[in-house]
Amino acid sequence: MGRWEPDAAGRLREAAIELFLERGYDLTTVSDIAERAGVTSRTFFRYYPDKRGVLFGGTEALETAMTRAVAAAPPEAGAMDAVGAALEAAAEVLSGNRAYASKRQAIISTHDDLQERELVKMAGLAHVLAGALQSRGVPETAARLAAETGIAVFRVGFDRWVTGIGRGSLPGVIRVVFGELRALSA
Amino acid sequence: MGRWEPDAAGRLREAAIELFLERGYDLTTVSDIAERAGVTSRTFFRYYPDKRGVLFGGTEALETAMTRAVAAAPPEAGAMDAVGAALEAAAEVLSGNRAYASKRQAIISTHDDLQERELVKMAGLAHVLAGALQSRGVPETAARLAAETGIAVFRVGFDRWVTGIGRGSLPGVIRVVFGELRALSA
Repeated sequence: MGRWEPDAAGRLREAAIELFLERGYDLTTVSDIAERAGVTSRTFFRYYPDKRGVLFGGTEALETAMTRAVAAAPPEAGAMDAVGAALEAAAEVLSGNRAYASKRQAIISTHDDLQERELVKMAGLAHVLAGALQSRGVPETAARLAAETGIAVFRVGFDRWVTGIGRGSLPGVIRVVFGELRALSA
Repeated sequence: MGRWEPDAAGRLREAAIELFLERGYDLTTVSDIAERAGVTSRTFFRYYPDKRGVLFGGTEALETAMTRAVAAAPPEAGAMDAVGAALEAAAEVLSGNRAYASKRQAIISTHDDLQERELVKMAGLAHVLAGALQSRGVPETAARLAAETGIAVFRVGFDRWVTGIGRGSLPGVIRVVFGELRALSA
């Protein structure tokens, strides 16, 4: 199958989510997903390493958005302001597809293995964010603290948005949670 | 486990750490550890589920210390003050054995699998801490935010203490990092 598949990655992702919810994650195979999406398994592996990978694409886009936002923050912005800009930029990346995010979260919440992978993903984002802050001249210790707490804010805000506890757009929810952290820490 | 107690669990732990550092984690077996500690493999399994488990004992003691400290905080204490008390109480539990903590960290840092397990442990602590805050009447959303950021502070402080970047006792280092978070968020 050398032919170009229009948005095969997106169709495979939708098919995978449907099947994980219908049959359960464990009982769904790569060939089930490929069949549902109308492509071959070979096409599947062109886009994703395995069925778990379908749920963890897009990390690079988040990293890039955060890194750019930190670099673009005004020189006088403090570490936490730069973190706030990074979180909103990452939120913009995810904001368009709440229905998908919600289904994905439902699948992840039922599997320890997937939850671990999500923790690793978040730890990776914190690492990238800390690196971006250091590139602005924030000392390593402060950069790590600001990045780790920032990612904690992001996770809490993301959960509120996905479950509907937090109303409105994801960047807006993240902004509210960030404000709450400032108020709690005051 | 009291540090004064020359019990089998403690001896097995010391033996495991020695061997993981000498031979590497992957090349060390349960029977190597038991032999070094002068006990049988059967005794090993009375204390630990597997060799990885040796590095992840003591979670319950941390959870108990944090839960008690949150419950014992004065009624007028805010969520973040209660979190501060919990982190210091958890730090007291670990504070007596920096040499062990440092070796353990060195082993964990070289293995993705162990790092993932550590992330899961920390996520579990955040969950317990959030529950303790809710028992004080802190609303769920604020409890989760305070707990997640609190555990981020704990991880950053713990790393500084283990690596020697943070001087003095672990509770003291955690207190400093907590103060930095307040300053950063101000």
